[in-house]
Parts: sequence; structure tokens; C-alpha cells
Amino acid sequence: MNKDGFLIVVSGFSGAGKGTVVKRLVEEYGYSLSISATTRAPRDGEEDGREYYFKTVAEFQNLIDYNGFIEWAQYVDNYYGTPRKFVENEMKAGKDVILEIEVQGAMNVRKQYPNALLIFVTAPDAASLKSRLAGRGTETDEVINKRMKRAAQESDDIDAYDYIVINDDLEECVKTVHSIIVSNKSLRENNLEFIDKIKSELKGL
Amino acid sequence: MNKDGFLIVVSGFSGAGKGTVVKRLVEEYGYSLSISATTRAPRDGEEDGREYYFKTVAEFQNLIDYNGFIEWAQYVDNYYGTPRKFVENEMKAGKDVILEIEVQGAMNVRKQYPNALLIFVTAPDAASLKSRLAGRGTETDEVINKRMKRAAQESDDIDAYDYIVINDDLEECVKTVHSIIVSNKSLRENNLEFIDKIKSELKGL
Repeated sequence: MNKDGFLIVVSGFSGAGKGTVVKRLVEEYGYSLSISATTRAPRDGEEDGREYYFKTVAEFQNLIDYNGFIEWAQYVDNYYGTPRKFVENEMKAGKDVILEIEVQGAMNVRKQYPNALLIFVTAPDAASLKSRLAGRGTETDEVINKRMKRAAQESDDIDAYDYIVINDDLEECVKTVHSIIVSNKSLRENNLEFIDKIKSELKGL
Repeated sequence: MNKDGFLIVVSGFSGAGKGTVVKRLVEEYGYSLSISATTRAPRDGEEDGREYYFKTVAEFQNLIDYNGFIEWAQYVDNYYGTPRKFVENEMKAGKDVILEIEVQGAMNVRKQYPNALLIFVTAPDAASLKSRLAGRGTETDEVINKRMKRAAQESDDIDAYDYIVINDDLEECVKTVHSIIVSNKSLRENNLEFIDKIKSELKGL
């Protein structure tokens, strides 16, 4: 019922599979995906403009100065940001845009876009989160423990999200997130124009 | 994620097709439908326990006295009410229960069940609402005009609903209402127990 597309923020614990969920949402339902910019070095197999836009620190800071990001944040030594232009163009074209970002960025998005939908993806429990992190086989115990500690901290941030979706079965989880996005369009507060219109039509008859 | 089922209130203008929407939701997705009790006389083809439970005024008042209704209301000369026992049993059994009731009842339900989901079904505009009412062919101009006046009054009640769904295409509308119900289960405030659990698991590790 809205002309403009919506902004959907998907966050979640590392190891909760949010990257796969987002990928499936784009494939299955044609959502538009925002690609973040970062100053961290590309990893093997990563491509500029696919996983991230890779920027130098100077380039990134220039983009900050020119209001080029909807939100940006620093994690450890690297910067991460959501390019403004892509997101705003897509939304104006009526497309729903998914941002896969961290909680800090999610809070900044909410401030600027009060209608943004904030979704937190979680594993069904802490044990399965840990086993998924270990199961990747690419991380040392130290890294896994560090991530579990970070998940413990991040768990307090769930309180700032609108929805929490358990990723137990991937396809179920994808369907649920899609349902949340669909239903969001029918929220009364997202249809105030339509409501005003039908009220005045009915009263004018 | 919740054990108990949810209560879903579907209201809407007369002629918006909410009855058909509700019927399809039950058929397609297995929702449980609450049958209202009424003191009005059965119409041709109506069956006790299918469209309504038909009661005498004395029976109805006795049920009021014994707290037998979740909500009840009087329209013109007839009483209408939602039997409490069925709804509560179904919810305890984990079933989502749909109530197709008027706005006055919806407000009473919300007071008792703050988690109840309130959905308002509307036609795309006033003109199509009127032509649907006329299209039935069973109503006089006087009745149609009376209903349109009532719709004008009821339109102010939309403000009390969580969601507004336009019934332009029946199957789309049914899918949207189903999505709203699915997404409601993932609302953060409907998962506080789960959130507490995973927080303490993560912090205890």
C-alpha cells in the first residue's frame, strides 16, 4: 500500500546463519540487498562490490564527511558503513532493502528511519550457536570463545529489535522473515494515508 | 515459540468480505474459528453451531451472569457474544483462534488479552464497498445506505487496530492475514521467555 520500499535490518549472533538467510531472501523473493563498505582487507574469494566495497581509510573518511553513509561504525581496527545512495534510490523505486548490519548500526538506522524493521536472527540455543561456530572448522578455539563472549554481550541488544527469529530450519526461517516483511506493510501506522483517504470517502458519500 | 495459541480478531466493514477471508484462513491454514452466540433468529440456511449458537435472551443473559463470554455486545435488538470456554481451551491447546467480531468486541478482547492481534479488513475504496453491498442483490437501497453510514462511523475505529488489510484480491488478502499471524509469533514481546533463556545460557557459558 506504500509507494516507497521499506528498510529491513537483519542482525544476529555470529554463527546464527543470518548471511545465508539474507542470501535466500534475495534469491527467493527479490529483495534488494545493501552491500556495505569496509576498510578491512578482502579475504580469499571476496570480490569488490559483491561481499563488500573495499575502501582505504582515506576513502572511507571522505565518504563519512560527505554524508555518504546511512550508518557507519568501527569494529576493532576496521570501519564498516552502509552507502546511502543505493539504499535511498532503491527505496524510492519501491524496493524493500535489506541491511545485514550490527546492532550499533541498527540503532542508527532506526533513528533516521523510524519505520525500519529490525529483525534479530538467533540460533535455537547457546549450545547450537557454539557448535555451529566450531562446525565451520575455520576458527580456532580462541576465536570461538571470543565470539561466544561477544554473543553474550550482544544478547542484551535483542531488546532493541522488533522481531526475533529462530534459525533452526533455514527455509522456515526465511519464510518467517518474509512474512514479517509482508505483514509490516499492513501495519496501521504504515497506511495512514490510505486510512485517511477511505475515511473521507466514506464520510463524504 | 509460544506454547499457547494466539487470539486473532478480524473485523471490517460490512461488504469488505471478511467472512470469506476468515473461511479461507480456516480451510487453508487450519486456524480455529470461534462461533459466536446470538439472540437473533436464524436466517434461512443457517445452522445452530455453524454460523452461530442461537440462544434465547434468557439463555444469553444467564451466560453473561456466569462469565461465559469473553466479550458480548448488543446491536439494535440482538445480543452477540464470544463463548469463553472454546476460545480458552483452543488457545491452551496451542491453537490460534480467530474471532470475527465487531469493533466494540475487539476493544473488549484487547483489554483482556493484550497480546491479541487486531486486524481490520477493508475494501480498496468506498465506491467498491458500496458496489459490493449492492452486488449481493439481497439488500434494499435503504439497507445499503444504512450500512454505508455505519461504515463511515466504523472507519474511525480503524485507529484501534494493529493491521489494516485491503481485500482487493481474495487469495492475496488471505495470504497477507496469514503472514501477519505468523509474524506476530516472532514479535520480541511475544518471546520474552526464550530471550531470557538464551541470554542466561550465553552469559553462563
